[in-house]
Amino acid sequence: MSNPSILILPGDGIGPEVMAEVRKIIDWFGAKRDLVFDVSEDLVGGAAYDKHGVPLADETMAKAQEVDAVLLGAVGGPKYDVLDFSVKPERGLLRLRKEMDLFANLRPAQCFDALADFSSLKKDVVAGLDIMIVRELTSGVYFGEPRGIFNEGNERVGINTQRYTESEIERVARAAFELAMKRNKKLCSMEKANVMESGILWREVVTRVGQDYPEVELSHMYADNGAMQLVRAPKQFDVIVTDNLFGDILSDCAAMLTGSLGMLPSASLGAPMENGRPKAMYEPVHGSAPDIAGQGKANPIACILSFAMALRYSFDQGDEATRLETAIEKVLADGVRTADLMGPEGGVPVSTAEMGDKIIAAL
Amino acid sequence: MSNPSILILPGDGIGPEVMAEVRKIIDWFGAKRDLVFDVSEDLVGGAAYDKHGVPLADETMAKAQEVDAVLLGAVGGPKYDVLDFSVKPERGLLRLRKEMDLFANLRPAQCFDALADFSSLKKDVVAGLDIMIVRELTSGVYFGEPRGIFNEGNERVGINTQRYTESEIERVARAAFELAMKRNKKLCSMEKANVMESGILWREVVTRVGQDYPEVELSHMYADNGAMQLVRAPKQFDVIVTDNLFGDILSDCAAMLTGSLGMLPSASLGAPMENGRPKAMYEPVHGSAPDIAGQGKANPIACILSFAMALRYSFDQGDEATRLETAIEKVLADGVRTADLMGPEGGVPVSTAEMGDKIIAAL
Ligand SMILES: CC(C)[C@H](C(=O)O)[C@@H](O)C(=O)O
Ligand SMILES: CC(C)[C@H](C(=O)O)[C@@H](O)C(=O)O
Repeated sequence: MSNPSILILPGDGIGPEVMAEVRKIIDWFGAKRDLVFDVSEDLVGGAAYDKHGVPLADETMAKAQEVDAVLLGAVGGPKYDVLDFSVKPERGLLRLRKEMDLFANLRPAQCFDALADFSSLKKDVVAGLDIMIVRELTSGVYFGEPRGIFNEGNERVGINTQRYTESEIERVARAAFELAMKRNKKLCSMEKANVMESGILWREVVTRVGQDYPEVELSHMYADNGAMQLVRAPKQFDVIVTDNLFGDILSDCAAMLTGSLGMLPSASLGAPMENGRPKAMYEPVHGSAPDIAGQGKANPIACILSFAMALRYSFDQGDEATRLETAIEKVLADGVRTADLMGPEGGVPVSTAEMGDKIIAAL
Repeated sequence: MSNPSILILPGDGIGPEVMAEVRKIIDWFGAKRDLVFDVSEDLVGGAAYDKHGVPLADETMAKAQEVDAVLLGAVGGPKYDVLDFSVKPERGLLRLRKEMDLFANLRPAQCFDALADFSSLKKDVVAGLDIMIVRELTSGVYFGEPRGIFNEGNERVGINTQRYTESEIERVARAAFELAMKRNKKLCSMEKANVMESGILWREVVTRVGQDYPEVELSHMYADNGAMQLVRAPKQFDVIVTDNLFGDILSDCAAMLTGSLGMLPSASLGAPMENGRPKAMYEPVHGSAPDIAGQGKANPIACILSFAMALRYSFDQGDEATRLETAIEKVLADGVRTADLMGPEGGVPVSTAEMGDKIIAAL
């Protein structure tokens, strides 16, 4: 049998430098744990635009469809702000999500003990926080038609369409219930059913899917109240399921509760492939941070934790994922800190590459 | 000349009891400050449904169009959850907003010194916080067509339409710039121009309107980053302008930063009427809180502060508004507390009515 395959798309800004650390980790697992991966690398975002004139070349798209997992760094930067909407770096990312049909975006918001002081929230509100947000990723207002800027009378009108079919809602709801079963059996679904018919259908379908999971305690919340409750008392939640746009905002809000964006990974999962593995892409929640790119300042942990998620969700190596996560916790407990993690209490300042080395030493 | 007119719509849940305190305050201004209002009262939300079978009767709508200002309590309650979408309590509120064309919803997120401990955020992050969110209130996905649940093949699809014309964006942007001129001359506009064409048009029009306000420092932020930044460092903002749906979520997120929802008012303003006053409705940000309704536990301050906004924005009585706000601050500094404001440090516990009395005493 051939080795499992990974396509690395470092992208823009700090993407390449954090991904370099992930490669070291991948190599370590090959050398020391006999987990050998076939790794290839390609361009996405602004980097792809610079070479191909599009933010994702067709050949790259085809490769992404064939591998067992894609690891993505980050896309975008001020240099590309002037580009037309259709070739902006983000379109490369959105094309990957859509064509790989990665409908379930898993975004853990976890507060690391060693970093609880970093949150803008009071320590007791966030210490031990461990939420999983499941965001629908291939539909809704991100992709609905009609869309565009049109002439109407003597002015223009900007239009986007929020659109969800029952089966789109059902499959992401099922993914969320499955996760809830493996966690604390508590799921909260968020929409605006008091204002939007798409939210009414969402609530109805989630409720129906819930009948297959009688052990899971299901609740519903309007998304505005959801944002409030995340700020007020985030530990009331375990798994949250919501649509693409609400998920974009609420998961970023939840991410910021932890105070350390450089720590948060994500997994985007689709349907099982022939080999039983789900179509999958893993990426850190943080952006391309062009202001610090190329200076060795970036925190590679979110990207490394994204690889841990790949070990768990794509390669059925939950124990190895835990090994990696534990090594990271140890390094943090030892006070090792990239610039973004350096608080008033001090610590051992390290560069991006040194952080990677420390994690390997802890493994 | 006749007295300025106010229509009071107490609505559901705690609406009637908090509005009773506002009436006392209105009476005080008539007796002691010679500010006499013609006050009438009517039904909205579930209360209107119970009597008329609709959440807002046509006659009530007509009255709202005629008065100088509407004061609304809150709508909704579990009793009405089973109702059809078209007659739910919220539809009464949305009809008022739409038919009065109240396009600019002003939502201050202000942290009261005496209550800074209430926030789930660290004191230094929120102490002295004073943001104004200007939310577009009559368009976007709340009202766009097509909308509904339709059959498609052998399943259903839920559809809503995000829709903004240039003139809709322009008028709310102008309202936000005007406010920024009266405050710290800093405006941040939030959308998802990286994903939505309606956001591209939004950004373009806001930028264009900004040319008429060269003194105002204008910035743009994606709404997901906006949610993050509100949690991370809210004091970086002064005035924020955003669309109806983003505004719903972001203003609730901002409101919760202050820790005291029972304190936050809002104003919804439209175009000037013949007498020069804007069409206007004022309402607390909190909901109808059915769980504590009728028990004298509700905090009337958000609703009283909404009347203070009416004094300022509808009746050009900024000094009287400040008088009322100062009285409220004094009562809070004295430790007077409704149940929701009672923290570990204790205080003088009071009922809804007693809070109203204390504020009048402080006036
Ligand atoms: C970069 C952008 C297109 C993207 C999104 O809006 O989905 C990002 O914010 C995210 O959450 O992954
Ligand atoms: C009650 C509801 C329809 C309303 C809204 O979504 O606008 C509320 O959340 C608000 O923010 O005023």
